[in-house]
Amino acid sequence: MTAPLTVEEDELALLTDLYQLTMTQAYWREGMDDQATFSLFFRRLPAERRFMLACGQQHAAELVSRLRFGKRAIARLAETGRFDDAFLDWLANWRFEGDIWTLPEGTPVFANEPLLEVDAPIAQAQLLESLIMNLVQLETVLASKAIRLVMAARGRPVVDFGLRRMHGVDAAVRGVRAYRTAGLAGTSNVLGGLRHDLPLNGTMAHSYILAHDSEREAFRAFARHMPGTTLLVDTHDTLAGVREVIALLHEEPDLSIGAIRLDSGHLEELARSARQLLDEAGLDDVKIVASSGLDEHAIDALLAADVPIDAFGVGTQLGASADAPVIDLSYKLVEYAGEPRIKHSPGKANLPGRKQVYRHVDAAGRLAGDTIAGRDEQLDGSPLLVRSVTQGQPDPQTMALAESARERVAQTRQRLPESLTQLAPGDGNYPVTLSEALSARR
Amino acid sequence: MTAPLTVEEDELALLTDLYQLTMTQAYWREGMDDQATFSLFFRRLPAERRFMLACGQQHAAELVSRLRFGKRAIARLAETGRFDDAFLDWLANWRFEGDIWTLPEGTPVFANEPLLEVDAPIAQAQLLESLIMNLVQLETVLASKAIRLVMAARGRPVVDFGLRRMHGVDAAVRGVRAYRTAGLAGTSNVLGGLRHDLPLNGTMAHSYILAHDSEREAFRAFARHMPGTTLLVDTHDTLAGVREVIALLHEEPDLSIGAIRLDSGHLEELARSARQLLDEAGLDDVKIVASSGLDEHAIDALLAADVPIDAFGVGTQLGASADAPVIDLSYKLVEYAGEPRIKHSPGKANLPGRKQVYRHVDAAGRLAGDTIAGRDEQLDGSPLLVRSVTQGQPDPQTMALAESARERVAQTRQRLPESLTQLAPGDGNYPVTLSEALSARR
Repeated sequence: MTAPLTVEEDELALLTDLYQLTMTQAYWREGMDDQATFSLFFRRLPAERRFMLACGQQHAAELVSRLRFGKRAIARLAETGRFDDAFLDWLANWRFEGDIWTLPEGTPVFANEPLLEVDAPIAQAQLLESLIMNLVQLETVLASKAIRLVMAARGRPVVDFGLRRMHGVDAAVRGVRAYRTAGLAGTSNVLGGLRHDLPLNGTMAHSYILAHDSEREAFRAFARHMPGTTLLVDTHDTLAGVREVIALLHEEPDLSIGAIRLDSGHLEELARSARQLLDEAGLDDVKIVASSGLDEHAIDALLAADVPIDAFGVGTQLGASADAPVIDLSYKLVEYAGEPRIKHSPGKANLPGRKQVYRHVDAAGRLAGDTIAGRDEQLDGSPLLVRSVTQGQPDPQTMALAESARERVAQTRQRLPESLTQLAPGDGNYPVTLSEALSARR
Repeated sequence: MTAPLTVEEDELALLTDLYQLTMTQAYWREGMDDQATFSLFFRRLPAERRFMLACGQQHAAELVSRLRFGKRAIARLAETGRFDDAFLDWLANWRFEGDIWTLPEGTPVFANEPLLEVDAPIAQAQLLESLIMNLVQLETVLASKAIRLVMAARGRPVVDFGLRRMHGVDAAVRGVRAYRTAGLAGTSNVLGGLRHDLPLNGTMAHSYILAHDSEREAFRAFARHMPGTTLLVDTHDTLAGVREVIALLHEEPDLSIGAIRLDSGHLEELARSARQLLDEAGLDDVKIVASSGLDEHAIDALLAADVPIDAFGVGTQLGASADAPVIDLSYKLVEYAGEPRIKHSPGKANLPGRKQVYRHVDAAGRLAGDTIAGRDEQLDGSPLLVRSVTQGQPDPQTMALAESARERVAQTRQRLPESLTQLAPGDGNYPVTLSEALSARR
């Protein structure tokens, strides 16, 4: 009875808004095939973010470069009765043959800066809109949350426990790609971690404790099976649970226990008391892992108070970026047939023409501000947008930037001005200006 | 270079948290195979919800009933070095052979009520946890948002425009299933709508206007191609756009235009002025569709003020249920080897044993309150949980309840007490009590 969970590659082109197809049919009937440029950007940062970490745009560019309307897709469109047979024949042969400029994966991005620009005949560029937006939003939203957790943890590992809170199967798998880019240390998500090369982490669940006759027997069994494991101590009473761990290690000193995990209650008090109990028992090598509804603010507060927690597991607040689960991306026509285009809707105006972003650094190497310019301008600073797809073909050299995103983000974190590393709401006063030529054009 | 977007059925079993597999290996080594019951529930409603609409649980039950660890999955697990070969052989033959009780799709559900219970040997029931939670959360979160939009719209159609804000490909497709259940009138999402039988809707984008030499020529071309279409009038100036529509229809009275769409600005003023302009031009059959960051509160305010809007398109606030993007579901061991189990973690205690929920109605047929009871109790009211899977096999009769969910939800909406139809934050004072026997057991 149920539909499949997956979307095969020959159906992916149907993951679009109906108007993309009806507009394309209209362009086709009108013979409109001039070169267009569409720009992907957001007008405002979420109140809870000082920057977004642009992720997924190179993956999206590569994916749409091979988008096709397969036989099954064409047949389903025919069934809707909305399309001419001749248009569907044309669609069956549709190929993306344009260029796609993108920020490298893992670039901090601010309001009105393009994450991606597509140059192509309008009927090619228009058809990419919905899928690109869906793909880029997911990774950008999740990575932008994850990097805040990493910053809050001051070098301590943060592990993704969010699979159960993520929005479906694709989010759960592809989201781990964003977490990897952002710098999380590991994930509990087996398929996500295996596919996207992030170390797997796991502890134990309360059910395991409850299925045994006593907490100590559960700890004993699990530690025997999984040397170096993390034991969950809060099923009944956290500090009593810690004492059970200590008693177990006195009974069986050869057992290896890597850490205990606190998953409820007042984490500051419990972590301090647990640390004291463990240290008094000579178990200063047993680490403390905390979870339980944590977000970057809670982690920051715990570490600001020097609470002895060595690692954090984050699920509920991470899995859907609960405080800022969407970014209001726009994909707007900015040039057609050689002429800049602009809309004037109140609060929704956009910058005309093809663009480039130049990023400036201060003497200490820190990010100092950006200039949004026309793509043909040559300004000081580093141009950020790279051509990821040329005439329909992914460029191996620029695509390699996606592979090195995690390392680049780790360096970028050290180069953020202090105002961007703050976690409180508020903009980071990061200066983004328009070039003179772009100002004049607007 | 990029990993596939899809998860094939032979890999789906790997979409789990590592600890499910390590705990299962421990159960297997310990020879623990007694019958367990796990219960899926949430402890608290989100502050922005008065009830959740339980969705996805029958789909999840069917899907996990055929879960297998295929060769590829076993090979990947072997590579991790964490599992015995003998355990992996056992896992390759692993089958779910238990029972799954669920609420029918589209049932309003409250704190501490099971959405689903699994009865099976512990190593079978444990392995379903992460996937069931991921699947049920997505549909439940999205349906619970969507039904609020439907209630706010007082019978006017609400259409999903959320594809670009949904979290990835699976959310975008399967989410439409939840929207269908909740009562949305249509979707812009082609693949989602085709797969889950929700009518497709589409208007036009600003890019289409901007690619033409003038707004009027764009309107003319699109209306010729798509009789009965909706024209987007806010690209430059909304009321000027409405006048262009009127002028076009005076020039070409045979053109058929179904509606205009407002997508920015002060919707109340613009809709009233647009309605007046259209009516004065004798175009009272041209409807007004509004979009632009709408949520249930905005829709409710517009209709409470009798603003002449005939239909609503909702994207950003719907696609990830932005005000309540996660529900803190728990999947807890409540019985093992015939004994009720319970954990005591502060704020995270659970109800012991297998359960049933009885729903009571008042004389007018409205929902009046629930009693959570042991599954073996016989109480007044209607028992809600049905057995969707028996000894590993989906039950066709109860699974048919998933097919009729949309119709049942439409009826349920008429049977909600007024306190549950309010949109403001606050609990609905809906009485959920425990049976005497369950109270005593706890």
